[in-house]
Amino acid sequence: MPAVAAVDWGTTRLRVWLIDEAGNVLAERRGDDGLITAQAAGFSTILEGHLVAMGAPEAMPVIICGMAGSRQGWLEAPYVTVPAPIGAILAGAARIPGQRRDIRIVPGLAQRQADAPDVMRGEETQLAGAGLPAKGRHLVCMPGTHSKWVLVEDGAVAAFGTWPTGELFSVLAAHSILRHSLGEQPQPVAPGNPFFRRWCEQALADGGDVTSRLFSIRAAGLLQDLKPDDAAACLSGLLIGGEIASASRRYGKGGSVVLVASGALGALYTEALGLAGLAVRTVDADEAVRAGLIEAARENGMIAGSGVTA
Amino acid sequence: MPAVAAVDWGTTRLRVWLIDEAGNVLAERRGDDGLITAQAAGFSTILEGHLVAMGAPEAMPVIICGMAGSRQGWLEAPYVTVPAPIGAILAGAARIPGQRRDIRIVPGLAQRQADAPDVMRGEETQLAGAGLPAKGRHLVCMPGTHSKWVLVEDGAVAAFGTWPTGELFSVLAAHSILRHSLGEQPQPVAPGNPFFRRWCEQALADGGDVTSRLFSIRAAGLLQDLKPDDAAACLSGLLIGGEIASASRRYGKGGSVVLVASGALGALYTEALGLAGLAVRTVDADEAVRAGLIEAARENGMIAGSGVTA
Repeated sequence: MPAVAAVDWGTTRLRVWLIDEAGNVLAERRGDDGLITAQAAGFSTILEGHLVAMGAPEAMPVIICGMAGSRQGWLEAPYVTVPAPIGAILAGAARIPGQRRDIRIVPGLAQRQADAPDVMRGEETQLAGAGLPAKGRHLVCMPGTHSKWVLVEDGAVAAFGTWPTGELFSVLAAHSILRHSLGEQPQPVAPGNPFFRRWCEQALADGGDVTSRLFSIRAAGLLQDLKPDDAAACLSGLLIGGEIASASRRYGKGGSVVLVASGALGALYTEALGLAGLAVRTVDADEAVRAGLIEAARENGMIAGSGVTA
Repeated sequence: MPAVAAVDWGTTRLRVWLIDEAGNVLAERRGDDGLITAQAAGFSTILEGHLVAMGAPEAMPVIICGMAGSRQGWLEAPYVTVPAPIGAILAGAARIPGQRRDIRIVPGLAQRQADAPDVMRGEETQLAGAGLPAKGRHLVCMPGTHSKWVLVEDGAVAAFGTWPTGELFSVLAAHSILRHSLGEQPQPVAPGNPFFRRWCEQALADGGDVTSRLFSIRAAGLLQDLKPDDAAACLSGLLIGGEIASASRRYGKGGSVVLVASGALGALYTEALGLAGLAVRTVDADEAVRAGLIEAARENGMIAGSGVTA
């Protein structure tokens, strides 16, 4: 019997899972009614629509993570300032007032250092579900539009940073002079692509300096007859290699990294992290957010259990 | 009496000067009929229109530099491969066939190194007009949409590189998440702006790694109430500082640089190069391209003189 609904509510999509008292997933449902749609249609209306369709009991509590907790979302769940223990972050979920159900949103994280301000919202829950050991120092990479790197020490977020790698790729491919090199619809880059590897290695050697090589992709099209799909592989390798080199400068080279990712992007990062000489343990991103939401339900007393990933 | 017309013909604008036998400027005319307009209206038609309006004699020769010599231009003036002496580059102007006048276009430059392919078109003429001494090693910075750094050794272009700093600023300001931070119409950044200086210094210290700090501008808006115009100053300082750090990594730190620039952009680069500890000699970009075209007219026997900047 379901005990709690867990919702990952992002900017453009939403996923709902029904979870039983023991933390087992009983049902899953996906929708494209993310933040943008919900701002118009109403968050409560959309959520109830999904819950009714899944046959969820009326009084069942709901735990949410993601952009639904932002200033433009349902309720702003104030940022928790790091350093902060992961368990305490989850336990600080903000309750939405005036609802029949107990509905809470996991807060995002803020790093308030004057010289490295940063924020995240949604990834803190993935992090909680990544199965990190309770003790020790762990570096976590969560690639995407805005890749997050998180340093976790003894179960607490010590520091984190954002590299807008996915966004840089999209914006440069669509709006910069590189659009002439990459063509209208660049194909997804396949792992093992030799252009990806070579440009990634170069970016790693350049220590995160990527701007010096962007125009070379254009020039290689003019002088070396570089093909559009290969140009896309160059740009991807350059940006991902640059991200890893830059994050390694900040958090220390070598050692190991926990990669929270799925699918083709996960495969590209696995390859790039390997080129950087890092040992990689991969956690599926979808499973991580689900596991993190279950932890959050426990930490907020919605289902039984001790809470805290450990 | 005018002896030659000199034309700087770029993508979006064109400038024409009438030059006498001794290299003096007699008249100037500007138009917004650059490459894009000329592709439709015809290059010959547009050029003759300007020359007639200026009262230029019918048989007078014309020397052109810029994108009019590209594959999408009037005639593709094939790239000269570097290393190459500046005088020889100018002397290799390509003659446009089937014209009553002697009309020639200065070739662009290609760097065909496998790991650092690059091209320029138009800046080679600015370089020729920058008044560099005939001997010695000189580093030249020509900032803009696609900033060029050129290493000149004993009057020859030894190597060059492109940093798409101006384009990165525009594209990120208009199309990335930073548009929320910078606002609709970011004001031009004034020299001495403390945000510009601080972010420039940070980028210089980071050795050209700029991607790690892009998202911090967004976060500073959320956490530190950074204002839109100050956010624009941060982005400008970050990208210009990153360009200088990166170019210094490639061509050597310290020493001096010849800055070929005008107006507000020149003032920002002067400040940033100073923060990097470089001694700066500034050459006005407009004067440089005009002087370079006069040199090109000499090198091609259109007016008297020995040719070669020295």
